[in-house]
Amino acid sequence: MRANILTVGNEILSGYVADTNAAYLAGRICELGIAVRRISSVGDDVEEICAEIRTALEDTDLLIVTGGLGPTEDDLTKQALARAVGRRLVVDKHLHGRLAERWKSRKPVSPRVIEALSLIPEGATTIGNPVGAAVGLDIEHEGHRLFALPGVPREMKSIFEGAIAPLLKEMPKDEISGTRVIKTTGIRESEIAARLVPVAADLPAGLGYLPRIEGVDLRLTAVGGDQPTMAGRLDKATQKILPLLGSYVFSADGEDLNLVVANTLMKQGTTLAVAESCTGGLIGHLLTQVAGISACLDRVIVSYSNRAKTEHLAVSREMLETYGAVSPEVAEAMAKGVRELSGSDLGLSTTGIAGPSGATKTKPVGLVYLGLAHAEGCVVSEQVFPGSREVVKLKAAVYALNMIRMRLTESEA
Amino acid sequence: MRANILTVGNEILSGYVADTNAAYLAGRICELGIAVRRISSVGDDVEEICAEIRTALEDTDLLIVTGGLGPTEDDLTKQALARAVGRRLVVDKHLHGRLAERWKSRKPVSPRVIEALSLIPEGATTIGNPVGAAVGLDIEHEGHRLFALPGVPREMKSIFEGAIAPLLKEMPKDEISGTRVIKTTGIRESEIAARLVPVAADLPAGLGYLPRIEGVDLRLTAVGGDQPTMAGRLDKATQKILPLLGSYVFSADGEDLNLVVANTLMKQGTTLAVAESCTGGLIGHLLTQVAGISACLDRVIVSYSNRAKTEHLAVSREMLETYGAVSPEVAEAMAKGVRELSGSDLGLSTTGIAGPSGATKTKPVGLVYLGLAHAEGCVVSEQVFPGSREVVKLKAAVYALNMIRMRLTESEA
Repeated sequence: MRANILTVGNEILSGYVADTNAAYLAGRICELGIAVRRISSVGDDVEEICAEIRTALEDTDLLIVTGGLGPTEDDLTKQALARAVGRRLVVDKHLHGRLAERWKSRKPVSPRVIEALSLIPEGATTIGNPVGAAVGLDIEHEGHRLFALPGVPREMKSIFEGAIAPLLKEMPKDEISGTRVIKTTGIRESEIAARLVPVAADLPAGLGYLPRIEGVDLRLTAVGGDQPTMAGRLDKATQKILPLLGSYVFSADGEDLNLVVANTLMKQGTTLAVAESCTGGLIGHLLTQVAGISACLDRVIVSYSNRAKTEHLAVSREMLETYGAVSPEVAEAMAKGVRELSGSDLGLSTTGIAGPSGATKTKPVGLVYLGLAHAEGCVVSEQVFPGSREVVKLKAAVYALNMIRMRLTESEA
Repeated sequence: MRANILTVGNEILSGYVADTNAAYLAGRICELGIAVRRISSVGDDVEEICAEIRTALEDTDLLIVTGGLGPTEDDLTKQALARAVGRRLVVDKHLHGRLAERWKSRKPVSPRVIEALSLIPEGATTIGNPVGAAVGLDIEHEGHRLFALPGVPREMKSIFEGAIAPLLKEMPKDEISGTRVIKTTGIRESEIAARLVPVAADLPAGLGYLPRIEGVDLRLTAVGGDQPTMAGRLDKATQKILPLLGSYVFSADGEDLNLVVANTLMKQGTTLAVAESCTGGLIGHLLTQVAGISACLDRVIVSYSNRAKTEHLAVSREMLETYGAVSPEVAEAMAKGVRELSGSDLGLSTTGIAGPSGATKTKPVGLVYLGLAHAEGCVVSEQVFPGSREVVKLKAAVYALNMIRMRLTESEA
């Protein structure tokens, strides 16, 4: 069984939003064991949508369309669907009644809105929308199955998870596929490829490289066979790769670095305090994305001004004047200062030049000092991260989180 | 002139990444006055890529393909391109020489890698890659223009901006189009639609709604005519809409809220200190994305533990015990505390239950108190934000930033 995803909306074609609906649906459909063959996007135009639906139906069994189901004039997916499968648009009387009832108790809407929302291609089955007014549609056409979903992500997800995923799960599949992601940081793609040469030729799973700002992800894919066979091949491939990459790997199961670090802190019961300067709160934000971290994260001090550095972190004025705020001495003082102040096991610090301005003759944009204070002392690292302000902040935050990981892994070993 | 964008890669079809390359290219191509008609994605498979290139060429003048140009076995775009336009793949001797030279001074690579990187469809023009090894391609075929770019975002952008954008800028266009984005927060889509009823029917530009977690964006689009006519229509439509939405609009020109708030602080020379609890550093992170904010942002204290609240913010133990950390009293004490401590003009605070656990009988997940202290006193707002931990954090941060905006706008008026 092969699926196509079609997303409809001018906001996608104009680059105004990245197509996260397609990514969500593709990920879920793959998880349900159905191969996605093609994703496409067209604008709010009946002709274009209709032509694209016809193209998509040519070689797939399953088509999921999102967007363009609302009541406004730029919502044209139902018209296009009806035309593509050669049916009339008709008012679903039952749906019309429900919508009219729904709006009785709220602000009145124009009868045109209710009528527009009640139109469906003749013979289509409606799928209730638990969080909005536009229903989903389920259409069978010449051996193909079509689903249409609203484009609002919350509504799309709600209808997909509630009604469509259970249907897809039950559908017969020719073959299943599985994926595993090994996540690395601090090592380049070309260096990984060089290290993997001895095993690359006979890995029992496909290998893809995905370089991201945070590090390089390795995607293993196995297709065919039953569930245990497939999982076995992914395991075997993972076991061949891991020894060659050592501690550059922070997750062999697709977990993000902030989750790995937060979970390790929580598991070990290690407490942490952070003094951020150039990262501006990003380290705190990343760690607090993880539920339960309040047990380990005592505080984060974003000491953007020198005064804040002096007041909270016992960084002396003399030190700031002698070495400058962006210096290994200040990074060390910040890390030690926040650790002592909070009585935490670890104190982490960043100070650097995020850019685009602020560089000096000796200190370029992207220069960052990172400190990690612990019971036995303090490690300070000097790094120069190339890129925009946003990229420098993110790379520095990832590097800092990885310093914690390395420290916690050492103490585990 | 109409363009198609084709992105190649299994990581897109499996939903592992959102297709940000397509969004980037679509946005830039539209800015250059060329309408993007369709975006599609296929996997790393010669047949599929070739078929999709042929489909795309049927009704567009310009096709931009990204991904699959590297030297590994899953890089198949050049093979597919050659097949789609009926040419052979040949080694570009000049390119081969340059690549061999490049690697002389580095780690040696396999001759197969250099050969793979040097293959091009016969007659294609290569476009140098300033930041990587895989070159771009420029192919003319039966009146169509095809460009192929590597899938690594940094390389794709570098080649596009350096070589392709200047070419597209000079190409003759049948019609130009323009977009403007009005950004709102704190008002629902349906309420906006109700308010715009009096002007919706005869707006001189198309209007699209885009609800996001931060608020609803309104996209105005005008097509056709010359540059001044188009800009005039966008201006006129904007002027009709703005009075109906009042202060819910924070930008009539597509700027994000953090940028608007940071710029207003900087313009007015107002200083700010922040005490975050449930937002965990996100407010600091958002504000420090904006260059120059160090002139206004003194410090951010993420007082995750009660001890941190007491030590830094003069929130008394009695208060924490009597009212609990998530309370209007503590939000006010935090805002006032951080303002006084830092000597800033404004003190902002958040305290709440980000979830998924932590709720009590009287305090649900999503309950957040936000405080803004200023010279005349302190405003405290109670909000309940529905959604996941990430969503609660983001909505609270946006609400907090908007409190600053409202305060600064008042003082301007």
